[in-house]
Amino acid sequence: MATHSAGPEIERLIQLLAKLPGLGPRSARRAALTLLKKREALLEPLGAAMREAAAAIRVCEICGNLDTTSPCALCRDPRRDAHLLCVVEDVADLWALERAGVFRGKYHVLGGALSALDGITPERLNVASLLKRVGEGVDEVILAVNATVEGQTTAHYLMDMLAASGVKVTRLAHGVPVGGELDYLDEGTLNAAFKARRAL
Amino acid sequence: MATHSAGPEIERLIQLLAKLPGLGPRSARRAALTLLKKREALLEPLGAAMREAAAAIRVCEICGNLDTTSPCALCRDPRRDAHLLCVVEDVADLWALERAGVFRGKYHVLGGALSALDGITPERLNVASLLKRVGEGVDEVILAVNATVEGQTTAHYLMDMLAASGVKVTRLAHGVPVGGELDYLDEGTLNAAFKARRAL
Repeated sequence: MATHSAGPEIERLIQLLAKLPGLGPRSARRAALTLLKKREALLEPLGAAMREAAAAIRVCEICGNLDTTSPCALCRDPRRDAHLLCVVEDVADLWALERAGVFRGKYHVLGGALSALDGITPERLNVASLLKRVGEGVDEVILAVNATVEGQTTAHYLMDMLAASGVKVTRLAHGVPVGGELDYLDEGTLNAAFKARRAL
Repeated sequence: MATHSAGPEIERLIQLLAKLPGLGPRSARRAALTLLKKREALLEPLGAAMREAAAAIRVCEICGNLDTTSPCALCRDPRRDAHLLCVVEDVADLWALERAGVFRGKYHVLGGALSALDGITPERLNVASLLKRVGEGVDEVILAVNATVEGQTTAHYLMDMLAASGVKVTRLAHGVPVGGELDYLDEGTLNAAFKARRAL
């Protein structure tokens, strides 16, 4: 990063802000300036919110979700169907599905996807705890992993691991996103959408 | 923002992060998750950096720059030419010019640009202090404001205010950005570049 007239305190703040997803070096500089210009309105409340979140939030010992309690509110909710287990890569994916409100079962957060390139082996994911849970009365495991190479590799690996248990394993459908224009879709998606076409 | 399974602490953190420039509601959620997943590596150092920057940084009483001292390092630097005064809207603009290393005079930060829409009147900008500085031995005032409606309005206003002082007032050149492709430029820029064309 180029030098400028501010002190090392601002440089350090910019460097740390640049580590947040979505912020590059340039936008991190703008964010740092905004924080310093709005101390009472933004910098101090954000600092307090970070401390409070760090103190309050824990990882759910059952599913890997982040919540103020462990087990998390989803795992403790008796109205959620414990026979259905939805496997996601990340907490963000769990939140996305909850926002959509499409699923009323339980979740299991893997904590990533298999990747030889990044050295993510099955031992580094929450696979052992998944197999244990599946053995405790689960009827269907829905593999809601990303439609990426890593996600699909993870799905294949988990299907192999779950084969012996006899549990039903499903995955999310591939196809044209709702609101999507064919013109902008890649060949893989169009191919999947054609293959899975349904009678009207 | 839609509800999800996390507690109010995370919601509050997401809301505050979304106020940073460059982060929308979705990227603020990803940033909050990243912070909570990397507590030792990111959340705690960032909190400390924010506290340290808030404690160390002050507004320069002369030019309006942000620095650990007031007057700032630029105002105190005897090697910088006090006869040249570069007027910018914001501290970020000052930093951009310093990164480019094109100017060796002094700066004056207005703290914004005139905007009837946003209620930014001359009284809310550092105009009085600019006029005072100009009266203390400045030969040239360079209006390095943005090439926006607000920036140009501000430049015209300042030219009127400075006319009586007899100081030389200049502005940055408009034209094709270096590395820019004509195909992607707006008509205003092309028009300005044509009008200001130079003999080779």
